[in-house]
Amino acid sequence: MSNVIEIAKKAKEASILALQMSTKIKNDALHKIADAININKNEIISANNLDLENAKLLLEKGEITQSAYNRLKLDENKLRDMIQGVKDIATLDDPINKIIWEKDLAQGINLKKVSCPIGVIGVIFEARPDVISQISALAIKSSNAVILKGGSEAEKTNTAIFNIITSALSKIDEFPKDIINLIYSRDDVKIMLDADKYIDLIIPRGSNSLVSFIKSNTKIPVLGHADGICHIYIDEFADVNKAIPIIIDAKCQYPSACNSVETVLVNRKIKDKVLPVLIKSLKENSVVINSDEEVKKEYSDDINAVVSDWHKEYGEKILSLKVVENIEEAISHINKFGSGHTDCILTENDLNAEKFMMFVDSSGVYKNISTRFADGFRYGFGAEVGISTNKTHARGPVGLEGLTIYKYKLSGNGDIVNDFTTGLKQFYK
Amino acid sequence: MSNVIEIAKKAKEASILALQMSTKIKNDALHKIADAININKNEIISANNLDLENAKLLLEKGEITQSAYNRLKLDENKLRDMIQGVKDIATLDDPINKIIWEKDLAQGINLKKVSCPIGVIGVIFEARPDVISQISALAIKSSNAVILKGGSEAEKTNTAIFNIITSALSKIDEFPKDIINLIYSRDDVKIMLDADKYIDLIIPRGSNSLVSFIKSNTKIPVLGHADGICHIYIDEFADVNKAIPIIIDAKCQYPSACNSVETVLVNRKIKDKVLPVLIKSLKENSVVINSDEEVKKEYSDDINAVVSDWHKEYGEKILSLKVVENIEEAISHINKFGSGHTDCILTENDLNAEKFMMFVDSSGVYKNISTRFADGFRYGFGAEVGISTNKTHARGPVGLEGLTIYKYKLSGNGDIVNDFTTGLKQFYK
Repeated sequence: MSNVIEIAKKAKEASILALQMSTKIKNDALHKIADAININKNEIISANNLDLENAKLLLEKGEITQSAYNRLKLDENKLRDMIQGVKDIATLDDPINKIIWEKDLAQGINLKKVSCPIGVIGVIFEARPDVISQISALAIKSSNAVILKGGSEAEKTNTAIFNIITSALSKIDEFPKDIINLIYSRDDVKIMLDADKYIDLIIPRGSNSLVSFIKSNTKIPVLGHADGICHIYIDEFADVNKAIPIIIDAKCQYPSACNSVETVLVNRKIKDKVLPVLIKSLKENSVVINSDEEVKKEYSDDINAVVSDWHKEYGEKILSLKVVENIEEAISHINKFGSGHTDCILTENDLNAEKFMMFVDSSGVYKNISTRFADGFRYGFGAEVGISTNKTHARGPVGLEGLTIYKYKLSGNGDIVNDFTTGLKQFYK
Repeated sequence: MSNVIEIAKKAKEASILALQMSTKIKNDALHKIADAININKNEIISANNLDLENAKLLLEKGEITQSAYNRLKLDENKLRDMIQGVKDIATLDDPINKIIWEKDLAQGINLKKVSCPIGVIGVIFEARPDVISQISALAIKSSNAVILKGGSEAEKTNTAIFNIITSALSKIDEFPKDIINLIYSRDDVKIMLDADKYIDLIIPRGSNSLVSFIKSNTKIPVLGHADGICHIYIDEFADVNKAIPIIIDAKCQYPSACNSVETVLVNRKIKDKVLPVLIKSLKENSVVINSDEEVKKEYSDDINAVVSDWHKEYGEKILSLKVVENIEEAISHINKFGSGHTDCILTENDLNAEKFMMFVDSSGVYKNISTRFADGFRYGFGAEVGISTNKTHARGPVGLEGLTIYKYKLSGNGDIVNDFTTGLKQFYK
């Protein structure tokens, strides 16, 4: 039996034992993890330095990007954030064993819908080693077992953090073993994706190509988003004074984030009022503008190119710009080329706002606010598993709740269905 | 472009238009469908007779089972149930546009989590033509578009019902076209399963092999259950007087239902008290008993065989029977061989009941009540989409809510993230 299958099987068994973890045990475990990371900072930094040495060679050869190198690098700030992140999750409400709904079905028959963990969660991530402590903490708090598969470029850092976490957990007698697992090899991913008997949910954290590959190669449900192609539509009733700062924020505040804007649609009726200021402001902020034939002709000096693919996530300071005839064209463009992530209308007209927010089929539909607000922390979830463009289970920024499902608990006193079909007993209305 | 892709694409477009259907329009549509089925009963029965003639030949040749033939056959009772089913769905609460949760994130920034339809639902079903009216009604009420793929053995009946439904809907001006679609050919299934660009959820209604085939052949989320291997565990603290009627009900009341019991586990400590009466009662109810070596030896005359596969759904009056040492062995047997559907403990000991209901990883965990209660109608949902053994999205009996997801609506007044990272503005705690 493959090592990964063996790990998955043990994780499944551990996930059953995890059902009995009290909130106190879980929070104690999180504090122990935070303390252990703090105490063993130097060990993590040393391991990270070894990974960085290798990565530097890859960077020089052009085999990894500077941003991948940056994500790999841990410093005091990132370690502090890792530790604080784990502590923060300890302060959140326990999402497990909550009675979501309850009903007496008939005399003596009580039905409860109770939240419970999903079971075993497989997390496949690239570069960022800080994911390990974050996902481990989320899994513990939600009583799930987790199998982490990190990138080979971070193997030494990942191993160091993993060993520190499991060693801290092993000192808690009541804490079930095998809840947190780490696997290494790229070959293991395929085995993991086939292990639908043991793994209940896959969460990919990384590039679009990673997410797409995973979705195409597993029967296991996948929680993730493949693209973040966010739009802002400037309606004919938009307030230009609000529009410019929102678009600059949505594009420039953190261009590589999935919730940054990629395409701005401008209503023809407001075009001449908004475009001169918008284009000027974008240029001042070093944003490269791609547009349509019409705008390119009119602002030839300021427009880089005519957009050939409206379904493109730039992830940097580049913006697609298009003139649309009306709100209907804007909605239809977004539903056609968007990725169902986050899309915004700028308008002072409530009916248009309502229309946009009803007909745009995205996880986040916004009015007069930057798309950058699409984030579990900003939504007040206290932690974020990721942002989902799924249309089942969990959509949009996903908090701890996304790692839970429910079971039905039904209690009777010797009750049989036959008594209800014969009419001897009746269900309550 | 394939015809099915064309239909899926139109269904996707229709699903956007469906977002504006008011509750009144949806309920009017349901009543019009119910009336149209009632008026055109004879047409449906005639079409059904043609399908039955063909099916009779297949039955004689042994190519279909008697029970498949029975499921295909529509009579006055089934038609009455179909009509009433559609009317009942009209009486349910509209599951769409409900504010699930709302929060002011900061001064002037309001976040709403609002229920919305999933989009396009593909339903693949066998035999039973009454599924068409039921699923169409559920889709309309939840503002989803639907693509129905029926079995070829029911093609004439399905077409008749589908034409009656779409003709009734075409008379409602405000009702979007292309919300209800029917496809025929077996070859279409593969194209449908590949159409993840247009179809958001697949619901299989039929045999285990159909469900397994679908799960293995699509990237689209699947809502369904592959098996219904339900257990009843007779604890050492069980009340034998309650146990016997519950087991007889769970096995005999409707043996082919997925919520009927397949395996009874008996605690060794109560074995001698319960087995003689249980075995006698099962025999009186014509239930064939398969068991383990120990029971077979002791009750050789009454036991049919030693069970070779504990992971088996009989679907008829056959029962697996096993002696276990303790509740832990019962729980572990169920988690190993069960299908995560519905499992029950019979006990008067509350701690054991709690333990069982916590550690058995099934959608329904029951105490002192027949497993046959696992049903959307009995749970008071008013309608049932199916029973799910998924551990994401929807689990257990699924009502209308299972056809919904949510979107986040965020309203601001020119707000940007940068003001919050610089500390100029603060989120509410």
